[in-house]
Amino acid sequence: MKRINIGLLGLGNIGGGTYQVLELNHGHIENVTGLDLRIKKILEIDTERDRGFTVAPGVFTQDPEDIFGDPEIDIVIELLGGIEPATAFMAGAMKAGKSVVTANKAAVAANYELLTDTAEENGVLFRFEASVGGGIPLIGAITEHLCANEFTELLGIMNGTTNYILTKMGEEGRDYEDVLKEAQALGFAEADPTADVEGHDVANKLSILMSLVFGIRVRPEEIPTTGISRVTKQEIDEAASEGCVIKLLASAYRTKDGVDCFVQPTRLNKGHPLADVRNEFNALFLKGNAVDDLMLYGKGAGPFPTASAVLGDVIAIARKL
Amino acid sequence: MKRINIGLLGLGNIGGGTYQVLELNHGHIENVTGLDLRIKKILEIDTERDRGFTVAPGVFTQDPEDIFGDPEIDIVIELLGGIEPATAFMAGAMKAGKSVVTANKAAVAANYELLTDTAEENGVLFRFEASVGGGIPLIGAITEHLCANEFTELLGIMNGTTNYILTKMGEEGRDYEDVLKEAQALGFAEADPTADVEGHDVANKLSILMSLVFGIRVRPEEIPTTGISRVTKQEIDEAASEGCVIKLLASAYRTKDGVDCFVQPTRLNKGHPLADVRNEFNALFLKGNAVDDLMLYGKGAGPFPTASAVLGDVIAIARKL
Repeated sequence: MKRINIGLLGLGNIGGGTYQVLELNHGHIENVTGLDLRIKKILEIDTERDRGFTVAPGVFTQDPEDIFGDPEIDIVIELLGGIEPATAFMAGAMKAGKSVVTANKAAVAANYELLTDTAEENGVLFRFEASVGGGIPLIGAITEHLCANEFTELLGIMNGTTNYILTKMGEEGRDYEDVLKEAQALGFAEADPTADVEGHDVANKLSILMSLVFGIRVRPEEIPTTGISRVTKQEIDEAASEGCVIKLLASAYRTKDGVDCFVQPTRLNKGHPLADVRNEFNALFLKGNAVDDLMLYGKGAGPFPTASAVLGDVIAIARKL
Repeated sequence: MKRINIGLLGLGNIGGGTYQVLELNHGHIENVTGLDLRIKKILEIDTERDRGFTVAPGVFTQDPEDIFGDPEIDIVIELLGGIEPATAFMAGAMKAGKSVVTANKAAVAANYELLTDTAEENGVLFRFEASVGGGIPLIGAITEHLCANEFTELLGIMNGTTNYILTKMGEEGRDYEDVLKEAQALGFAEADPTADVEGHDVANKLSILMSLVFGIRVRPEEIPTTGISRVTKQEIDEAASEGCVIKLLASAYRTKDGVDCFVQPTRLNKGHPLADVRNEFNALFLKGNAVDDLMLYGKGAGPFPTASAVLGDVIAIARKL
């Protein structure tokens, strides 16, 4: 049995899910991997909130140096969200010799080179499976199992909120504003839904995928991006009458001159595998020159699916330590 | 650049595809992984056939000891098919200190313990991603990225021939015998289609999945198995009128007492992600206690998709050497 001590940055929605999944599946993970994963310290200001589970006394800290300076901690999981201070904390952890796992698409998309370079310079590992597609193991598939392929095409439904809204508009004949309000009431959409509905969240994820699938760095703000806020019931009905659905797609295609990429509402023929991806589900469709068409489908968000990916990364690193 | 020498057993359909994909993508693989993968020797009797590509003189051998006894060869790829002599050759390679990659579901399902134990005893790696689901990276997903999950359910469309036949019967209102003959003429079904249509091929794959997903060894012949040869047009029409399709499924469910598993034609509601998996495509649907519903979809057979998985395994091993 190999004991691995973890420092967790942030015990919000995703951090709490990761904490709970590790409690729930600790024995299973031990059986399958021989790893005893322990969260030793948690950086979190809000120590009093009722989260539905209890954290042992002394685990919480308000000082990141308590984690970075602890020689027993092997891996830091960053689940604060946002570009800063998350990026600075990840770099700090790496410089202190800790491998880092994150679910933070905004920080990875904004600071991809800084974070991957800092990991390399400090001889530590950096993994971010949960930053794109939540629980769907797509980064692992691209960078490991499918890496004998040259990819020619990538199409992704990478945002659950917008896919939920478009699904309801199409299936129930409702207006954008009406479904958005429902999604907000259900907690599927945030009070300020801009990042989701205007496609910025998807652009962050496509930026990360461009590096991994095509080896090309494109900053999120360089990706032509159109969201769904101007998609009308009428356009969806018209598409349906022609055997199509409208999905908010992250798209990238290899061309003669390089790779084109963009985020926009796109018509898909109902026979396309992505056309049946409904509600809050996400999926990535890839075409490789050996594997041909491939699709990975699952929950692209939520505390437990995201925890699945975070802990998968933790285990991958722990197996190499 | 790390040079990795490979011994290839068998240059048939799949072996030829693997050879070609490695030629086609050698430079890409070097760029992405820093690995220079070379097929140094090929065990093959038929050296004269026109395969559409040429093999350098001196690469072919008829003596497996030329491969096992070559200290420069790091990895042996077994693509002979069939239980023997494939199993004996794989064990022989392992005893000679070579890591082994195979696409051979029959040999892995029949001799799972022997092969995994022999690899462990000899301190070599053994990988068999291509044996289940062809190019779909499902074994990697289960054993690595999703291994923080306890799985509760597995449903798979794991045979392209039978899925093609059932799709055509359903969409074109045709009889089983009629579509089978067409599939044979197109090369999708073999002259003796028994292993496919009676579900034995799927039982081999489910046997392998049971070990990986549930940690339970079930021999293929212990799995209750019904094929598609008695599925009628009428049954398919009846299912359709109730909003369902009939698919040949590999199924396994966690119960109070353990795990039930079986292979049989099964009604799926048209809203289920597997219901839209058409023609020769394969897909695996999993439910994990963290990731929830997940589906991996792609080409479950064919020389190039299978080569994608074989080379993914070779690269994974080479990165560890």
